[in-house]
Amino acid sequence: MKIVAAKKILKANEQLAAENREKFDAAGIFGVNLVGSPGSGKTTLLEALFSRQGLAGRAAPAVIEGDIAGSIDAQRMDALGVPVVQINTEGACHLDASMIAAAVLNLDLQAVRLLVIENVGNLVCTAGFDLGERLRVVLLSVTEGDDKLVKYPAIFQGSHALVVTKIDLLPHTNFRVQRAVEDMKRLAPAAAIFQVAALRGEGIPALADWLVQRMEAR
Amino acid sequence: MKIVAAKKILKANEQLAAENREKFDAAGIFGVNLVGSPGSGKTTLLEALFSRQGLAGRAAPAVIEGDIAGSIDAQRMDALGVPVVQINTEGACHLDASMIAAAVLNLDLQAVRLLVIENVGNLVCTAGFDLGERLRVVLLSVTEGDDKLVKYPAIFQGSHALVVTKIDLLPHTNFRVQRAVEDMKRLAPAAAIFQVAALRGEGIPALADWLVQRMEAR
Repeated sequence: MKIVAAKKILKANEQLAAENREKFDAAGIFGVNLVGSPGSGKTTLLEALFSRQGLAGRAAPAVIEGDIAGSIDAQRMDALGVPVVQINTEGACHLDASMIAAAVLNLDLQAVRLLVIENVGNLVCTAGFDLGERLRVVLLSVTEGDDKLVKYPAIFQGSHALVVTKIDLLPHTNFRVQRAVEDMKRLAPAAAIFQVAALRGEGIPALADWLVQRMEAR
Repeated sequence: MKIVAAKKILKANEQLAAENREKFDAAGIFGVNLVGSPGSGKTTLLEALFSRQGLAGRAAPAVIEGDIAGSIDAQRMDALGVPVVQINTEGACHLDASMIAAAVLNLDLQAVRLLVIENVGNLVCTAGFDLGERLRVVLLSVTEGDDKLVKYPAIFQGSHALVVTKIDLLPHTNFRVQRAVEDMKRLAPAAAIFQVAALRGEGIPALADWLVQRMEAR
């Protein structure tokens, strides 16, 4: 039975994720797992978040980039001077806790307060794998359509915040913000909801403030 | 070893896909596997393709909709009067050949010439699973960014056509069509490349003509 093997993998991942979380807590590191579709704007959001109107000077960030192939996103973090480790999953549609445990060996954890893990672009596989983070933040771009919460409920259900991205493109789409907000409140009543246009910096200060609050409240 | 189990699953899928293909060929049905990110515009493309400027009167279509949950897309096909079967994968990030074999039992295959299978929104998992189609068509919306071919090469590599969608939003993005075209030619030299704005009908006649040609050439 293949189901047994899958459960074993998930169980092993849970244990490794708990170990990651303990390690991060002991080192005073706050982990954030950033998930969303391909092209939902994860890397662009990070670029905006690490700018002066975002977290610059407030968070000592480092990034783990998860991609099937390539290092385009890691290069973008490098260009900002943010310490970054690229994981190439070579086909796997999500990161897992063992990949994170291996990746952090390449970071100077003593210099890090905020560890953002940019997951593989995927609304499905990423939902099942705890990485040892304290927060999971899910992105949804208005260009993807407002039906995604109904179609991919698990990833939204388990997230602590929804960031609606590319809000500046709203006039060119049939995306209904109200519908997305209502669906998110149904799926994850306690989650925070933000609207951003990262390329313009809109909504970035509010998101950055919330992240700092959550880091300090831990 | 988990790898053995995974290989067994893939091998079983290959065999089932070949059986589906034989069945479709014998019935004179042309199968198309439509893949792309969540929100890349798969259902909206189908709505445009089944309109008068597209395939209406030329293809006798039916659709299989693959989604984790819900039946939003199937309802949209229903509204067009196109025969449709909804598959809910309940967590799985892609359709497989066994799901298709079960789904077609709910269709009157004698009345169908073109069977479009709209896969789960996913650029990763869908790449590994032949469904028994004759063509795989991958969508990439300009709002997703032009780096997706480099980051998710497998899904583009195995596709027979790239449809660049939401081309009307190009002025609002930093998407470089030329870069996407060049990357596609490198990954899949024989693939056809289309640019469409499905909500406006732009590019739909060319794509419809190409599909009809491919159906007739079989």
